[in-house]
Amino acid sequence: VKKRCKVTIKPDGKTVWVLEGTTVYEAIEEAGIIIKSECGGAGVCGSCKVKVVDGRYEEHGSERFLSSKELEESNVLACRAEIKGNLTVEIPITSRLFEQKILTEGIEKEVRVSPWIQKYHVQTVKPTLEDQRFDLDRIMKSLQSQMRRKVQTNLKDSRNTPGTAQVSLEVLRLLPESLREEDFSATVVLAGDEIVGIESGNKTDSCYGVAFDIGTTTVVGYLINLRNGKQLGIASRTNPQTSIGDDVITRINYASTNPNGLEKLHEKIVSCLNEIIDELVKEAGIERTDIYEISAVGNTTMNHLFLKLNPKYLALNPYVGVLREGLSVEAKDIGIHINPCGKVYSMPNIAGFVGGDTVAVILASQIHKSREIKFAIDIGTNGELIMGNRERLIACSTAAGPAFEGARITYGMRASDGAVEKVVINRDDVEINTIGASKPIGICGTALIDSIAELLKAGIIDKNGRMRKADELPEHTPAFIRERLITHVNYGSSFVLVPDRVSRSGREILLTQKDVRETQLAKGAIAAGYTILKDTLGIDDKDIKEVLLAGAFGNYIRREQAKQIGLLPDIPTRRIKFIGNAAGSGSKMVLVSRAFRQEAMHISNNTQYIELAVSKDFHKIFAEAMFFPKDIRFE
Amino acid sequence: VKKRCKVTIKPDGKTVWVLEGTTVYEAIEEAGIIIKSECGGAGVCGSCKVKVVDGRYEEHGSERFLSSKELEESNVLACRAEIKGNLTVEIPITSRLFEQKILTEGIEKEVRVSPWIQKYHVQTVKPTLEDQRFDLDRIMKSLQSQMRRKVQTNLKDSRNTPGTAQVSLEVLRLLPESLREEDFSATVVLAGDEIVGIESGNKTDSCYGVAFDIGTTTVVGYLINLRNGKQLGIASRTNPQTSIGDDVITRINYASTNPNGLEKLHEKIVSCLNEIIDELVKEAGIERTDIYEISAVGNTTMNHLFLKLNPKYLALNPYVGVLREGLSVEAKDIGIHINPCGKVYSMPNIAGFVGGDTVAVILASQIHKSREIKFAIDIGTNGELIMGNRERLIACSTAAGPAFEGARITYGMRASDGAVEKVVINRDDVEINTIGASKPIGICGTALIDSIAELLKAGIIDKNGRMRKADELPEHTPAFIRERLITHVNYGSSFVLVPDRVSRSGREILLTQKDVRETQLAKGAIAAGYTILKDTLGIDDKDIKEVLLAGAFGNYIRREQAKQIGLLPDIPTRRIKFIGNAAGSGSKMVLVSRAFRQEAMHISNNTQYIELAVSKDFHKIFAEAMFFPKDIRFE
Repeated sequence: VKKRCKVTIKPDGKTVWVLEGTTVYEAIEEAGIIIKSECGGAGVCGSCKVKVVDGRYEEHGSERFLSSKELEESNVLACRAEIKGNLTVEIPITSRLFEQKILTEGIEKEVRVSPWIQKYHVQTVKPTLEDQRFDLDRIMKSLQSQMRRKVQTNLKDSRNTPGTAQVSLEVLRLLPESLREEDFSATVVLAGDEIVGIESGNKTDSCYGVAFDIGTTTVVGYLINLRNGKQLGIASRTNPQTSIGDDVITRINYASTNPNGLEKLHEKIVSCLNEIIDELVKEAGIERTDIYEISAVGNTTMNHLFLKLNPKYLALNPYVGVLREGLSVEAKDIGIHINPCGKVYSMPNIAGFVGGDTVAVILASQIHKSREIKFAIDIGTNGELIMGNRERLIACSTAAGPAFEGARITYGMRASDGAVEKVVINRDDVEINTIGASKPIGICGTALIDSIAELLKAGIIDKNGRMRKADELPEHTPAFIRERLITHVNYGSSFVLVPDRVSRSGREILLTQKDVRETQLAKGAIAAGYTILKDTLGIDDKDIKEVLLAGAFGNYIRREQAKQIGLLPDIPTRRIKFIGNAAGSGSKMVLVSRAFRQEAMHISNNTQYIELAVSKDFHKIFAEAMFFPKDIRFE
Repeated sequence: VKKRCKVTIKPDGKTVWVLEGTTVYEAIEEAGIIIKSECGGAGVCGSCKVKVVDGRYEEHGSERFLSSKELEESNVLACRAEIKGNLTVEIPITSRLFEQKILTEGIEKEVRVSPWIQKYHVQTVKPTLEDQRFDLDRIMKSLQSQMRRKVQTNLKDSRNTPGTAQVSLEVLRLLPESLREEDFSATVVLAGDEIVGIESGNKTDSCYGVAFDIGTTTVVGYLINLRNGKQLGIASRTNPQTSIGDDVITRINYASTNPNGLEKLHEKIVSCLNEIIDELVKEAGIERTDIYEISAVGNTTMNHLFLKLNPKYLALNPYVGVLREGLSVEAKDIGIHINPCGKVYSMPNIAGFVGGDTVAVILASQIHKSREIKFAIDIGTNGELIMGNRERLIACSTAAGPAFEGARITYGMRASDGAVEKVVINRDDVEINTIGASKPIGICGTALIDSIAELLKAGIIDKNGRMRKADELPEHTPAFIRERLITHVNYGSSFVLVPDRVSRSGREILLTQKDVRETQLAKGAIAAGYTILKDTLGIDDKDIKEVLLAGAFGNYIRREQAKQIGLLPDIPTRRIKFIGNAAGSGSKMVLVSRAFRQEAMHISNNTQYIELAVSKDFHKIFAEAMFFPKDIRFE
């Protein structure tokens, strides 16, 4: 009868009882401690060095990897040392497998790096007549010992895959030669617990992913090293679907009414992503095949067009989509050119007009875990609003339209070189600032807000949004202001923001009465949504502890001015915070950690969508929200 | 505050407490009782009729499906009835979902029909502005209520698929129109818990599968109705790989040494299966697309060639295969033409030369659950032997060769029309029987055994297998026997089984000395395997409670004669049983019930392979096993 031996493991202080003859490696495994091992205890990788502090053992084969000095000091390979009595071993830090953590930028919090796609190096022993295990079985043992959980070649209690190996046919077809090419040293690519790839030798160093934020207008990709979560590059493109239409409804209609319309829109966005991937890998000096996964976050329409799902019913009352859930599919099934075994993960949606980008904003800002009530706004082509806390979270989409992106504004333009981005009316002049300090071409969203706020303060626009005529202005209105108030032959009442001699084209840049009306519609839609969300929760301005501004536009808003025109609620400015491209941050989070995918699905399941159109008094609330809050005249 | 009501469910006698206002349907679900419902409690299918025996309730909408007489008698749709107080309901048998059981033929036992592929009819409600659920979410509710377990659109605790829907991209792409084509009535095809197919309307009636037994020489397919497990047809073909080589080693070498050799062998077997499927669906009057899954069972080489896995190392010492585990893959990835969402399941193997066919024999004969020790033989081109019980099970493969299939025998042939299948030596003549009562062409395996057994009894063949010369025969040997013993110019010592005047070709059909030697090698290999298995278990003939003969050949063996030549052990004939094409039975079992796939993997994990070549004294045991047991002379 074999005796039982007590094994104490330092510095953990854990104790296990094992039978005499058990290896130190097995005892450590039994204690639930993860020790490095690429060969699964077969004595061929040399990773599992430990020091025997005290006790009896026998070892055979450690000298292949340890120096005589190391051996003299009672260091052994844990898998080569058989326990012969009570024993105390110490695991050096260099033999331990730790989880890696990264601190990501901005709103992104410290996340555990645990991507869906993981690579493991396996060093297996050569088969003999006494060890005729199949190739797949050979690599499983090594994999299992390296992973916290059991790899499921045959998962006894899985109803989903009874008695079948979790491995792709492609891997099985490559397996025998991949294993033998570099002397039974190979790299296994796992997607979750499924073996999806096999490479000869140790290729664990190259494992990358790209996180995408697919906006209606702009697509951004972030290259991420999946081993440590670090960002290596960023690239963006205009969404090529804009050539079909600026807004989602136009694109849905195109997809529904044109032969191959959906295919065309799908191919446009897929080539855009492929181009971004190309640029990212070139700049980083890696290969396309080093990319193993991409994550895609966008609104529900972008999500459907990307996956080539029929978006038709998203545009027809009652606006029903196909897929709310997150989805993981083969990259090759979508046409994304990365590693042949690569995957695409798409974020879950919430409703037809509140998509994965909103889930990503919630995920990145962690509103769903907050004790205090927060309010987040993501103003893109539409404006999505989120309100609530960990008890209850609601969201809506407002038809804000693209006014803040410069569309439908007489001299509107995107926030790019030459755009007026800031307007200040001083005591003696109208000052402007342009992007790139260039000669002004037009005005972008922030300048639109600024100029209306300034004109409200100057008493030139009234509470109703009407531009006053010159004879209605307060008497003490300075001449430099009066001069700029004109009646344009085409646009009617207008304010000259940039005189002709200053602009790049040599013509005046105006803010017209129509621009003010467009802005009222846009900010009114957002303000009405805000009011309805508050009413739904039964709360007041004062209950909102934080307002979070997400998205490219949100980050440039001047908060005081936005409050002036009623785009933001009248909440102390210090409580209004910028959270950057939160949708992009959320996309990176789900790429880097599988746990966030569950969290994203949880958010999708538990965020209640508020359909503004069916809200009581919607039209009344909207009409009221179009007014400007204050009517200020010069005294 | 709502009050709690006690609900008693008859005839089960179960009791649950629910809040007032809960529907009877929800209460029944809570009690863990499965009631029919195609709409998931939405009131649009009319399947969940129950009778309220006693208590208060309110119902709205049952009249759409129930007659006024039914309503008067307190029948309601469970999903339309709200509980208003303590209640007793009775569920009629017609509203219950029961599992179907089938009694299959021969060795196959009664199995619960629970195939991997299942179809469900879902009747969902139309979306409105108040119910904007996504298309996928709409069908999930109905599915969940129909299934015993929760369908995993987002399986919280699954590490394998965190927060992602278990649905194929193809289904999502078809979903919106499939759902709307027949007014939100659709049929969902599930593979396990994954949604792999969607069809408009109720198509649950057509769901078929084909179970294959892929032999080295012969391929058999069985058409099975997956709804009730019933067999609808059977078809077979010669394995077209025989044109490359009769045995597995030749085929492996062909695959390893010829360009595209593996592809060619793979394509041959796949077209063979496709032809069989074609024949089966035509005869049954169904469509190819009505087939949703096939199961494939064969030896390890057949398994690898079918899956297009490199078999090279199976033929090289130490004979290592790629895949031992069972595998479930897309039919289209293998080239099998069935429903586009169809699957292929391949049986797990045990070792390089003990494959899925042996697993299937064990599964069908349930040796792995037997208390008593059994011994099973499956003689095909090789002979696989299984011995043991539920405590321990061991298996080996013997290089028996194809002698019993007629190969390498001078006048050998397969068991087809014109083959001598039986030989009896009477007091005054040699009697034969041929298949189809035709003029004899050659001899098949059973006649080979018979003739050698008879010649042993007649003293014409001695214990060593040598044919005696005429002058060595016992004196009283009858003339009709003496006359038949000749020395052929090409074959040497031979016995005339069929005189020239009787045979179809007009030439004599002989049993030659070489044929006896071939038979000795074949039966010696099997007998040696038997001895080594017994030695490994440390048991004796008397410990073996049953000998099971599997396979086409096994079922025609005359047990007394087989014992006479030492092919079968000297065990009372009543304990030697025929179990039919057990490999085919096993293939049907895994097709019809997913539970058997787990059992098959369990068998693969727990059956120990015995490599005869490394057994102690193998050569000595083999040499001894080639002798015939008794040396009988006429007295």
